[in-house]
Amino acid sequence: MSKDERWQSSLTSIAPDKILVRGYCLDEMMGRLTFAEAVYLLLMGELPTPSIGRMFDAILVSSIDHGVMPPSTLAARNVATSGAPLKDAVAAGILGFGPRHGGDIESCMKFLDGGLTLVRGGKSVQQTAEALVDECARNSEVPPGFGHRIHARDPRAARLFQMALELEIEGEHVRLIRAVEGVLARKSEQFGRQLPVNVDGAIAAVASDLGFAYDFGNALFLISRLPGLIAHAHEERVRQTPMRQIDPKDHSYDGPRERRLPERRK
Amino acid sequence: MSKDERWQSSLTSIAPDKILVRGYCLDEMMGRLTFAEAVYLLLMGELPTPSIGRMFDAILVSSIDHGVMPPSTLAARNVATSGAPLKDAVAAGILGFGPRHGGDIESCMKFLDGGLTLVRGGKSVQQTAEALVDECARNSEVPPGFGHRIHARDPRAARLFQMALELEIEGEHVRLIRAVEGVLARKSEQFGRQLPVNVDGAIAAVASDLGFAYDFGNALFLISRLPGLIAHAHEERVRQTPMRQIDPKDHSYDGPRERRLPERRK
Amino acid sequence: MSKDERWQSSLTSIAPDKILVRGYCLDEMMGRLTFAEAVYLLLMGELPTPSIGRMFDAILVSSIDHGVMPPSTLAARNVATSGAPLKDAVAAGILGFGPRHGGDIESCMKFLDGGLTLVRGGKSVQQTAEALVDECARNSEVPPGFGHRIHARDPRAARLFQMALELEIEGEHVRLIRAVEGVLARKSEQFGRQLPVNVDGAIAAVASDLGFAYDFGNALFLISRLPGLIAHAHEERVRQTPMRQIDPKDHSYDGPRERRLPERRK
Amino acid sequence: MSKDERWQSSLTSIAPDKILVRGYCLDEMMGRLTFAEAVYLLLMGELPTPSIGRMFDAILVSSIDHGVMPPSTLAARNVATSGAPLKDAVAAGILGFGPRHGGDIESCMKFLDGGLTLVRGGKSVQQTAEALVDECARNSEVPPGFGHRIHARDPRAARLFQMALELEIEGEHVRLIRAVEGVLARKSEQFGRQLPVNVDGAIAAVASDLGFAYDFGNALFLISRLPGLIAHAHEERVRQTPMRQIDPKDHSYDGPRERRLPERRK
Repeated sequence: MSKDERWQSSLTSIAPDKILVRGYCLDEMMGRLTFAEAVYLLLMGELPTPSIGRMFDAILVSSIDHGVMPPSTLAARNVATSGAPLKDAVAAGILGFGPRHGGDIESCMKFLDGGLTLVRGGKSVQQTAEALVDECARNSEVPPGFGHRIHARDPRAARLFQMALELEIEGEHVRLIRAVEGVLARKSEQFGRQLPVNVDGAIAAVASDLGFAYDFGNALFLISRLPGLIAHAHEERVRQTPMRQIDPKDHSYDGPRERRLPERRK
Repeated sequence: MSKDERWQSSLTSIAPDKILVRGYCLDEMMGRLTFAEAVYLLLMGELPTPSIGRMFDAILVSSIDHGVMPPSTLAARNVATSGAPLKDAVAAGILGFGPRHGGDIESCMKFLDGGLTLVRGGKSVQQTAEALVDECARNSEVPPGFGHRIHARDPRAARLFQMALELEIEGEHVRLIRAVEGVLARKSEQFGRQLPVNVDGAIAAVASDLGFAYDFGNALFLISRLPGLIAHAHEERVRQTPMRQIDPKDHSYDGPRERRLPERRK
Repeated sequence: MSKDERWQSSLTSIAPDKILVRGYCLDEMMGRLTFAEAVYLLLMGELPTPSIGRMFDAILVSSIDHGVMPPSTLAARNVATSGAPLKDAVAAGILGFGPRHGGDIESCMKFLDGGLTLVRGGKSVQQTAEALVDECARNSEVPPGFGHRIHARDPRAARLFQMALELEIEGEHVRLIRAVEGVLARKSEQFGRQLPVNVDGAIAAVASDLGFAYDFGNALFLISRLPGLIAHAHEERVRQTPMRQIDPKDHSYDGPRERRLPERRK
Repeated sequence: MSKDERWQSSLTSIAPDKILVRGYCLDEMMGRLTFAEAVYLLLMGELPTPSIGRMFDAILVSSIDHGVMPPSTLAARNVATSGAPLKDAVAAGILGFGPRHGGDIESCMKFLDGGLTLVRGGKSVQQTAEALVDECARNSEVPPGFGHRIHARDPRAARLFQMALELEIEGEHVRLIRAVEGVLARKSEQFGRQLPVNVDGAIAAVASDLGFAYDFGNALFLISRLPGLIAHAHEERVRQTPMRQIDPKDHSYDGPRERRLPERRK
């Protein structure tokens, strides 16, 4: 078979004692790149700048866990209580990232790109935001990336926008989503409730400004939340009795009280 | 229902506008902790020291991808070629981390702890290594964490050991596995082939020295490889024709040639 | 909590020593209903007539296996070769039932219902079939439920249609799909190849005539193929070496030669 | 590549317009074999006798559903509530068949075979049952296949044993498990509770008498319960609001009241 007939992959080349990820020696990456930087390299093909690397670390930290109530976490715990191996619980949790849970990132990326087409056509960002919100209101749809069952002001979204500004990474997607957020704050009565931008919306906007493909929108959430699924599956295995009935409402938190990050971390 | 009857979780507390992971504000962690440090905090309950954080980043980078040939990657690609969503391909890939693929980390952690029991009983590390290897030879078993289909000297293992030494994290598990490695090099004829320590063995030893539970041994591999599964599933979706027959042998690499990390990264 | 606030399920009631499936005692169903009849009862809520029961058994038999080449089967085998438990291999196989593999049943059910809307509007079945084919040709789309990589005349589809006719179950969906099949046979040059109705199309038409919901279209394929996934995962575990590279093309069949069903079965 | 170097499969041969399952034409099987008979053929390699076919149908019917409370069902419902496709919910449910849920069948098959070794050594079935129970009592272990959270007399187990007797399929595994059941009834105080044989134990004994491999023990449960997972995932999708918190305890049954199978079925 000639080389031309072979199928191709551009990710990682494997030879005896030599592993190249996107052309870089994997063992040289170790200790020199953070995991987040290595993930960025693998997905995007090139190294991030230091600012983008720091932004990307923050994106991955932002969704690392959200307690026991998300359906993905409950799916993982229900598999764990059956005595199944940890990886089975984790795989079931990943399957629980349906369109209504994590899937909003991709929808929001497309929503923003739809808006930017209007901007390219001559509308201002503000006019575009008004148009997007009005269309959602007409269709009685919540714009993707907005609203949260628990948070009135999602602290993760606020922090991502703050970092994007400080690191000078903010681009047209972030500017548009913030404009939409402003319009929604004024027009909340049309939707019957407050619709603050949520962490999915913030990730969607920042990831779009960084140039990520739609497919990778939800993938970022998946990478971020995996440790949470692992931690919950493990806790289920070691702290709870097997084959129990897991009620998502009757639990409480018994971990450390609120504490401050040490200064050197700030 | 009184609070006492509720089931407990110590991972993450959720209140309106406030998410505490192990007691720390999630939005304050963003930008201050790398993702790897946040993962360590979530799994272990406390922040890593800077040295441990750097070691942990390196552990997660070490297994980020290994080309198209691992069965987990092929499972993910076969699901992707059916047109299934990316997360389905990823979940199938995770299910492919069977005992013979990724599962070696936990086995090696137990193998080393078995050896350290002998050390506690008075044997030297060297005597213990000899005893462990002899027992494997008697049972015609390859010690977990040793041997590789492709690499004669696994560059990832070497780099992990070098970093553990430089960062002064090396402990008794690393010292024991290196002693076992030395014994195996001398006694390779008993096994009919060279059995260098592999990346699973190196992760097992370092993670054990850091105090990780057995459950988390394979979980570290899972976190590390997830981006690889994502990258392959995405590449399958965007570069290949759907419903193709994926032959693991007739592919070639068409990504960037070998290149050097920029100086500032070193 | 009052009964009214509880969430409801109408499938199975469980009390000590008494299990009622859709109102029937499960232990009385055993030995009196075939598994296929019990599946029909569980999904549809009522017992099938004997004719429908026989048709439904045939539907479930029709897709029980299709050799080693489907991507779902390869996903299951790749998971099995890693040493993972059988159920993990099976779950990965199910994830490989993507839109292009098994998913065609639901698409075809919707395609036929779209056509029947035209019939309700006054078009004849023949005119409707012409219209459906012409629209597909204009959009350069293969109609769902038609075409096969290997079979020029899918023997499973032919048998399902024959049985539907003999059992007097044939309805408007089957009549429409057969009309589409006829039109496609005349207009194959517009699609550049023959597009015979396949087993997915036949299941879609018969299941629609039986009144199954869209969701259940693909579910029937899932139930039917599960034993195939199990048989391949098991064969991989017991006949092959672990961690092998599974080439979908270089295999051959070494089972029994063609043989006839004994007379009493006919 | 010569034929000898190819890897082999003995399950299904695929040629244009011809599909042979274990040597039989798939389209001839349709309408002539029940699905259960076809499953038996695929897994075991030969057609069942009519009696075995009927027994096998009953085995598959026995575990078709057990309400909303099993962890596998809750895992499936939690994935479904996220908006994920039905097959994802089903795959998550399958992952929930851990060692403590469905996994008992394989354990019980091995437990009985361990006992039959004693019988081969000269012990009577009654002496063997006493020895097996005493060993479990000494180790404070519940024998696999015994005990149920809800049922004091599992109606499915009783029916399987009755059918095995009537169909003259009962063999040494069934005789041994019934002897163990008798011993346990007398010695329940040693275990602190009644330990009736459950449906897993009955399937294990009958499947062992039929000659099924251990791997297939749990596979039979998987095939049997798949329709239940599908029915619950579908019901979750069509009857419940998305992203709800699923409490396994606060539900009630609103399906048909108890009704009798029509006479012709008996």
